[in-house]
Amino acid sequence: MRLAELSRTTGVPPATIKWYLREGLLPKGEATARNQAQYDDAHVRRLRLIRALVEIGGMTTQEARNILAVVDDPNASIDQVVGAAHGALARVPDSDSDATTLAQVDHFLASRGWKVMPGSPARAELAGIVRAMAQFTPGYDHSDLALAAGLAPYADAVDQLAAAEVEELPRDVPRDVLVEQVVLGTVLAERLIGSLRRLAQESAFLTRYVAPSDTNR
Amino acid sequence: MRLAELSRTTGVPPATIKWYLREGLLPKGEATARNQAQYDDAHVRRLRLIRALVEIGGMTTQEARNILAVVDDPNASIDQVVGAAHGALARVPDSDSDATTLAQVDHFLASRGWKVMPGSPARAELAGIVRAMAQFTPGYDHSDLALAAGLAPYADAVDQLAAAEVEELPRDVPRDVLVEQVVLGTVLAERLIGSLRRLAQESAFLTRYVAPSDTNR
Repeated sequence: MRLAELSRTTGVPPATIKWYLREGLLPKGEATARNQAQYDDAHVRRLRLIRALVEIGGMTTQEARNILAVVDDPNASIDQVVGAAHGALARVPDSDSDATTLAQVDHFLASRGWKVMPGSPARAELAGIVRAMAQFTPGYDHSDLALAAGLAPYADAVDQLAAAEVEELPRDVPRDVLVEQVVLGTVLAERLIGSLRRLAQESAFLTRYVAPSDTNR
Repeated sequence: MRLAELSRTTGVPPATIKWYLREGLLPKGEATARNQAQYDDAHVRRLRLIRALVEIGGMTTQEARNILAVVDDPNASIDQVVGAAHGALARVPDSDSDATTLAQVDHFLASRGWKVMPGSPARAELAGIVRAMAQFTPGYDHSDLALAAGLAPYADAVDQLAAAEVEELPRDVPRDVLVEQVVLGTVLAERLIGSLRRLAQESAFLTRYVAPSDTNR
């Protein structure tokens, strides 16, 4: 298909497609004439993946490029693909790392029986969050037991979800299909659970703070 | 306290504090001499709040400034504060809005009995995610029933969490304390659940794809 049809099929404006081509996110089409190229279904899928990373995942072009490089590397293992997606999703605080909090987080993860990937960005992010919670909570209890109790409702909520996501990945499919599903599932589920949590929070706030007569404005 | 002590107390480098002062995120201290000012506990708390928004929430200076403006407005209602925090956390896709998907999302939210705030950014974000899932799933079932079934495990997971968070907010505290807790709780819980989900996912991947002998590298 020509660029105009690729645009119609995916709903991505031609100027945006050209920008993704220039930035190297989208592979070039097959040149059929000067200034003309043919695109195929692989371009359609790649374009939707880019949009999912950039628009829904909120990633920068560079973050998306890093992930796509691992996706396209036939020698990259599945945990390297997961690591690349997690690297873009995590916000690792740039403050001085805090060995005490990291050790506490490791105790917590071990107590749940969770295996952690080497260099896990989520582990460092969690340590930063725990430190921020401690700074903001007057009389914060720094014991491992208190931390485990505070995190338990959140960990319980995601434990089964994550296991089901991985369980539902297709078996016996080519590597490129599996890898694309892993990246998509990782990014979409992150935003899905975030947006649903905020919607549930809105509802809880409206129930608690707004008089019934105000809710149907 | 002087700026050097404010820096020691919060762990924020003096240059970063000065930048927050210039950017208007942190209110000026009380001038005691030329080029010298005194800071108090309100500055310590504000500085920690800024760091939570910027470092943990991953917000831009402008997004943090927008939230702090609502936090500091004594006439802003609690749902306006929630709306400001959600506005910075949501990634609303800039593609053409899709009335069909939005209507489907509204049916889903109504089926859960969730009240939605006017102009909810999370609602628009959820519609974008649902559209992306549909584009990527071969043979996607566009019925309301299939959508409700697909979202149910995620919605179930966050429903009790969000209700508990709002329930646990302090009562009978001054507005500024409550508002600060609402913003912090909203931002920290978003990142907390995200990082824990990724850690649970890492563990599920390592269990499924990596041989036991590889996991203790």
